[in-house]
Amino acid sequence: MIDNPAVFDLRTAMALAASAVEDALNQLLPKTDKPEGRLFEAMRAGTLNGGKRLRPFLLVHAARLFNVQESCALRAAAALECVHSYSLVHDDLPAMDNADLRRGRPTVHKVYNEATAILAGDALLTLAFEILADPATHEAPNVRCELVTALAKAAGGAGMVGGQMLDLVAETTELDIGAITRLQRLKTGELIACAAESGAILGRASVQHRQALRAYAHDLGLAFQITDDLLDVEGTEAEAGKPVRRDAEAGKATFVTILGPERAREQAGILSRQAVAHLNVFEGRAAPLQAVAQFVVERRS
Amino acid sequence: MIDNPAVFDLRTAMALAASAVEDALNQLLPKTDKPEGRLFEAMRAGTLNGGKRLRPFLLVHAARLFNVQESCALRAAAALECVHSYSLVHDDLPAMDNADLRRGRPTVHKVYNEATAILAGDALLTLAFEILADPATHEAPNVRCELVTALAKAAGGAGMVGGQMLDLVAETTELDIGAITRLQRLKTGELIACAAESGAILGRASVQHRQALRAYAHDLGLAFQITDDLLDVEGTEAEAGKPVRRDAEAGKATFVTILGPERAREQAGILSRQAVAHLNVFEGRAAPLQAVAQFVVERRS
Repeated sequence: MIDNPAVFDLRTAMALAASAVEDALNQLLPKTDKPEGRLFEAMRAGTLNGGKRLRPFLLVHAARLFNVQESCALRAAAALECVHSYSLVHDDLPAMDNADLRRGRPTVHKVYNEATAILAGDALLTLAFEILADPATHEAPNVRCELVTALAKAAGGAGMVGGQMLDLVAETTELDIGAITRLQRLKTGELIACAAESGAILGRASVQHRQALRAYAHDLGLAFQITDDLLDVEGTEAEAGKPVRRDAEAGKATFVTILGPERAREQAGILSRQAVAHLNVFEGRAAPLQAVAQFVVERRS
Repeated sequence: MIDNPAVFDLRTAMALAASAVEDALNQLLPKTDKPEGRLFEAMRAGTLNGGKRLRPFLLVHAARLFNVQESCALRAAAALECVHSYSLVHDDLPAMDNADLRRGRPTVHKVYNEATAILAGDALLTLAFEILADPATHEAPNVRCELVTALAKAAGGAGMVGGQMLDLVAETTELDIGAITRLQRLKTGELIACAAESGAILGRASVQHRQALRAYAHDLGLAFQITDDLLDVEGTEAEAGKPVRRDAEAGKATFVTILGPERAREQAGILSRQAVAHLNVFEGRAAPLQAVAQFVVERRS
């Protein structure tokens, strides 16, 4: 893959965006010497732990299409990453997925304890909205309100948390392909769509451009999830940095158990190409976003 | 107490505010027939369960000082109550206080399950910011951003969640009176102050008026907490609607264990009178807020 210069550039661009958002997070996450300091350590542990930083990449590169100031895009990206990170911290709890490892390292509740992990997640979610509402994120208050609204809708009961609830329901109910698609759209798709859309909100994009970015990110999100399911079946624990085949062992329906690996791979490819096509409206200026839509179905971890 | 007409009026005013905010919450909390519906049921169970609705009362009556439209104040009050309710749902979890009862009824994780309670709390916190950022809460986006900022600061790591973390630390560390005051200011005081301050934000109050309301609510919050500690020692489970003397049994320092009941009661009285005095700047128009500052130290539950 290193031989393909387009892919190599994407990896560099992804590393740059990841490093920039980690700098922003490092500055925005609180620190203290006071007795409650372990809360902030747990927040940092749940956030500054590697990861692909896909959502920040989408937000930053969507914002660039509209010449948004980079520092503003990075603040919004950090806010979204706080929400994504809190969801992983809570999802890993014993009452939820009961995961001991995340990206090859012990999860927050294993290093700290359950109570601290619950509180760290709560504080990360709250911090995300504090960051978005701050004038440093955008000079116009109506833009900041739109960011808050978009994130709250994507992350709440009608979005990510609703999807996590469906995931719990799926443990005892058999889901068909329509129900799984809806589950994944809510659980991961809405926040991914919110990332691309937030770039458009920051740039006060036209309705047409905003919708193109939303449609792109929705297809990309689904392609990403189908690939995740394939990696869970075909990957190794070392590649994934977490236990694999847990879904199959739990008897949970996934895109792969319903479609089979061949058709699932085909479907991911179709969605990836569809995502790329949505951005033709930007006439070549959205190349990084188009490249990442290819990357998500080709990745090995 | 019924003989005292001022107190009788306050109880009516409190019941009116409580009923109005419950109507608002009932409209704002989502419902669905879809498979994730239990999430929304759990959110409703954690929110529409009685309670004094002290924060809504403070917000609504502070807003009235500045002739804020009542429907706007009730939306902001509902948002704050979502945050207060989520904090109780998470606080009652086995990994935190492990409480089976709240206001005489089984807690959310007992009726639903732990995972659903965690998610319901997360969704309530998220919903609070969605409500505040909505144009129906205030026509001016900068006012809505200020509301989001005030709530996020009051509820996050530097506020309520930080106080809950200190509460965990207190289980293994001996706290002095200064540390306990700080713990309570963070854990309950900041959100109570935010309630009164949000009325001022909605009304675009002067700095002087906003600070007076903040100072009032801070003193009231502390008086409220000291009285809570006294009720925990002197009240019965039937009056409190929850187990009493848990703090003492857990060996936790409280205002009462440090000051003794006599000095604690004295201190609560001083703070209550101080709270009343902060509102003299409103020249008699803040009578409901002044009455509630008296009520919080006289209550039996």
